[in-house]
Amino acid sequence: MAKAESKQPITPRDQDYARWYQDVIASADLVDSSPVRGCMVLKPHGFAVWEAIRADLDARFKATGHQNAYFPLFIPQSFLSREAEHVEGFAKECAVVTHHRLKATDDGVVPDPAAKLEEPLVVRPTSETIIWHMYGRWISSWRDLPLLINQWANVVRWEMRTRPFLRTAEFLWQEGHTAHATRAEAEEEARRMLQVYKDFCWETLAVPVVTGVKTATERFAGADDTYTIEGMMQNGWALQCGTSHFLGQNFARAFDVTFQNREGELEHVWATSWGVSTRLIGAVIMTHSDDQGLVLPPAVAPVQVVIVPIWRGDRKAMVMEYVDRVASLLGGRFRVRVDDRDNLKPGAKYFEWERKGVPLRMEVGPRDVEGGVVMCRSRLGGDKFKLPVGDDLADRVGETLDGIQRQLLERAVALRDAHIFEVDRYDEMKARLQEQGGGWFRVPWHDDAEAEAAIKADCKATIRCYPLEGQEDAAGRTCFYSGRPATHMAIFARAY
Amino acid sequence: MAKAESKQPITPRDQDYARWYQDVIASADLVDSSPVRGCMVLKPHGFAVWEAIRADLDARFKATGHQNAYFPLFIPQSFLSREAEHVEGFAKECAVVTHHRLKATDDGVVPDPAAKLEEPLVVRPTSETIIWHMYGRWISSWRDLPLLINQWANVVRWEMRTRPFLRTAEFLWQEGHTAHATRAEAEEEARRMLQVYKDFCWETLAVPVVTGVKTATERFAGADDTYTIEGMMQNGWALQCGTSHFLGQNFARAFDVTFQNREGELEHVWATSWGVSTRLIGAVIMTHSDDQGLVLPPAVAPVQVVIVPIWRGDRKAMVMEYVDRVASLLGGRFRVRVDDRDNLKPGAKYFEWERKGVPLRMEVGPRDVEGGVVMCRSRLGGDKFKLPVGDDLADRVGETLDGIQRQLLERAVALRDAHIFEVDRYDEMKARLQEQGGGWFRVPWHDDAEAEAAIKADCKATIRCYPLEGQEDAAGRTCFYSGRPATHMAIFARAY
Repeated sequence: MAKAESKQPITPRDQDYARWYQDVIASADLVDSSPVRGCMVLKPHGFAVWEAIRADLDARFKATGHQNAYFPLFIPQSFLSREAEHVEGFAKECAVVTHHRLKATDDGVVPDPAAKLEEPLVVRPTSETIIWHMYGRWISSWRDLPLLINQWANVVRWEMRTRPFLRTAEFLWQEGHTAHATRAEAEEEARRMLQVYKDFCWETLAVPVVTGVKTATERFAGADDTYTIEGMMQNGWALQCGTSHFLGQNFARAFDVTFQNREGELEHVWATSWGVSTRLIGAVIMTHSDDQGLVLPPAVAPVQVVIVPIWRGDRKAMVMEYVDRVASLLGGRFRVRVDDRDNLKPGAKYFEWERKGVPLRMEVGPRDVEGGVVMCRSRLGGDKFKLPVGDDLADRVGETLDGIQRQLLERAVALRDAHIFEVDRYDEMKARLQEQGGGWFRVPWHDDAEAEAAIKADCKATIRCYPLEGQEDAAGRTCFYSGRPATHMAIFARAY
Repeated sequence: MAKAESKQPITPRDQDYARWYQDVIASADLVDSSPVRGCMVLKPHGFAVWEAIRADLDARFKATGHQNAYFPLFIPQSFLSREAEHVEGFAKECAVVTHHRLKATDDGVVPDPAAKLEEPLVVRPTSETIIWHMYGRWISSWRDLPLLINQWANVVRWEMRTRPFLRTAEFLWQEGHTAHATRAEAEEEARRMLQVYKDFCWETLAVPVVTGVKTATERFAGADDTYTIEGMMQNGWALQCGTSHFLGQNFARAFDVTFQNREGELEHVWATSWGVSTRLIGAVIMTHSDDQGLVLPPAVAPVQVVIVPIWRGDRKAMVMEYVDRVASLLGGRFRVRVDDRDNLKPGAKYFEWERKGVPLRMEVGPRDVEGGVVMCRSRLGGDKFKLPVGDDLADRVGETLDGIQRQLLERAVALRDAHIFEVDRYDEMKARLQEQGGGWFRVPWHDDAEAEAAIKADCKATIRCYPLEGQEDAAGRTCFYSGRPATHMAIFARAY
C-alpha cells in the first residue's frame, strides 16, 4: 500500500517532528518496514540514494589509496571477547547463530538439535576482530604496511528501539580498517578519513557537519580516540553522521599482530577504523526536507530532473517528440526521468515527484514546444522559469542543479549557525532546552565523565564532541557546569 | 603469509587440476581462508574482479528496466516452510539465529538464555520468501506490474564441502525477483535474463556458456522451470554459472499475492528469479588460466596494464618521467598500475603480475625512452612488441586489449567445442569419462529422473541441461540410455 500511503498528508514539522520524519519517508516511498523486528526494506527510491552515496564515497576512498575487500559475515563468538572493551560494547546487541540446519516437525520447521554449532557465531556488529585476525596472517614486516582496506557490508546490532535509517537492527555501511607502522601515521589516517567524511558531507550531501573528538563516555568500544562528524537536524538535535577511530595498538595486542620494523625489532601494529552508514540518508532527510516532503541534494538524487509532458487531444505525438529531444540532450549528464504515465494528470505527477525530492521539474506542453523552451521549477520553490532548448541546455541545467546544491548547503549552514548557542552557565542551557527542545550549546567544559552523566540524566543532552576548531577558546575560562578550570570547548545537544 | 605463498610453484594442470586451481588462487592473492568454516576472505585483488563483474552486470540490469533494492538478511523461520519444495531444498543448509545477546560467564561469553528469540531467524540462503511477503504489500493492481527488482547481497548456505569461489558457506551474489501479470510475460523475463547472463559471459568474461533448461532433478526448489548457463572448464567439467527461474505462481500462492487484472478480477501474480554469484570468478579462473597462473580477460582485470620501469644508476629520473607520461596517456581509459617498488627487480615484478593475470605488461628502460616506445608483452604469450608513445597510444593499447579479450574467447570456444562429444550409446560416454575424466556429451535422451539418478551413481555425470539450441535433433532418435524414443537432446557432464 505504498501508493495509498503516499497520498496521506504529511504532518507539519512544527506539529510533530518525529511524525513528520516518518511521513516524509513514507510519502517518498524510500523504505518499508519488514516482518523482521527492527529491519527495514530499502525500496528502489531509497536504495538509489544509497547507491549515489556509495559511488561518491568509494571514489574518495580509492583516491586516498584504499582498496575494497570482503570479510566473513560471521565472527566466532570467542573473537569478540579478545578485546575487553569491545565485547563490553557489543555483546548485548548481537545476533547469534547457534545451528546450521532446520528440521521438519509436525509444528513446522525448528532448529535441528543435531546441528548445533560447537562454537556459536556472531553476525558481525562491526568487523575489527575478524579483520585483525586476518591481518595477523598478512602482516609480518614494515614492507606490508600501511594496509589500507575498506569493506562495504551489512551489519547487525540488535537495537531495542529502531527508527528508519537512524537506528535499525541491520544496516548497510562501509568500514575502513587500516594498519600502520607508527602511532603518528595511524593518527594521521584517522584524521584524514574524518576530513574525507566532512568534505563528502559538505560537498555531496550539503550537510554542514562539525568535526570533533568524542569524550571517553562516547568513544568506540576498543578505541583510544573517536573522531566524529555531527550534523544538526532541523529540530536542533544532533545526528552523529560518521566516526573515525584511532585504535592505538589495542586490536593488534588482542590478536597478536606484530611486524618487524626497519631496525629488525618486533612491534605491535597501529590501527584505525572508520565508518558511515545508511544513517546518512536520515541526515539528508532531516537536514533538507520540508512540509511538502523529501528534498534531495542533486548530487545524490536518484532522479535529478523529471520531465512531465502535458498534452490534450492530438498534440501528444508533437509533445512527446520534443520531450524525447530534451531527454536526449540531458540524458548523458544527468539522471533524467520522463513521466509519460497516461493514467495520471500532470498535477498528480508534480505532487508525487515533489514528495520524492526531485530537485528540478520540467513541464512541457504544446506552447513550450512552439516557443522552443521548457518550463522549470526548483524543488526549493521560487518562480517557474523558462530554459531554451538548445545545445547549451545541459549546461544551463547543470548550473541550475549546482545552484540548488549550493542553496541547500547555505540554508543548512544558516540553520545550523542560528541554533548554536554560546552559554556560560548550565542553567541557561537547561532552560533553553526545556523551552525549545533543541539547539547545540558550545560551552567551556572541564572533562569529567560523572558530570557528563549527571547532565544527561538531568536534561537529556550529551557531549556530541570537543570540536576540532576553536579549542583555544577554552583557555582561561571556567567550566559552565562545575566552575573548575575549562579543559575543552564542548558541544552539548540532544541527539538521535 | 600471502607473500610467501605467492612464490610457491604452481602445480601443472595435467598433474593435478584441483591443486592447480588452489595454487592459481593463492599465487594471485585473490582470497584467503577464514577462521569461520567454509567462509572465505575476498582479498583486494579478488574483490576487484567482483567489482568489475558487478558494475558491468548492474548496467545490463538497469538497461533492461530493473531497479536495485535491499531486503533483510534475516528471514523468519516459518516463512521458509510456506512453499513446500522451497523448504525441502534449503532447510538442510541454513544458518539459524536463535539469540540476540551474549552474556559474560567465567568461561567467556555465551548466548544469553534470557535473550532467546521467540521465532528463530534464518540467514537468507536466497530471498524469494521475504521478498514475496513484501510484494504482497506492494502489489494490488495490474498497474503495479511488472515489478522488476534486483538485490546485490550476501547469502549463506551451510555447505559441507567448500572450495574457493565455487562453493562457500557465505557468498556474494545478485538475485533478481520480478512479478508479472501473465505467464507469458514471466516466461519471457526468465528467458530475457538468461540471455543477459549469456551475453555478459561471452562478451565480458570470455566464457562461452551454453544456455539450456534444467531437468526436474536439478530444478530450483520452488521453480516451474530453471534455465541455466553452463560453462566448460579446462578439465572438461561443467560449471553452472548462473540460473534464471520461471517460478509460475508458486510463491504468489504461498504468500497470497494477488492483483486485480484489467477486467477487475483477482489473479495470483507470476514470478521469476535469477542469480549469479562470486562463483563466476571461479569460472573465469578455470576457463582462462594456465600453468603460469591467473589469466584475466581485460574487461574484468583490476589492473589491465602494468608498467614496469627499469633503470640503473642515475637514469631513474629520466625513466620515471617518461613512465608518468605513459601512465597519464592511458590512465583515463584503462586501469593502469605503475610498479615502481624499489625493493624488487624487474624479473620479480614480471613474475608477480603474470601470476596476477594482468593482460598487458609494459617495460620501460632508458633505451625505450630514447626510442620513444614502450616494450609490451601480452599475458597470453607471443613475442614482445613495441608501441610508439604518442597521442594514439591509448587507441593502440585499446586494440591490443580488445585482441586479448577476443583471443581468450576464441581459445575458450575452441576448447569447449573440442570437448563436446556426440555419442549414441551410454557405454561410449562411460568409457570416455573413465578414460579422460571430463568432456560434455550431447545425446538423445528420454526424460526420466530415475535413469538420470542411475547414471549419476554409475559414472558421476549429470544432465547439465537440455540446451536451448538444437532440440530438433532429438526428433526420430532413440534415447542413448534406454532406447526409448528421445524426448530431448541432453548434455551430460561431470560438474562442480
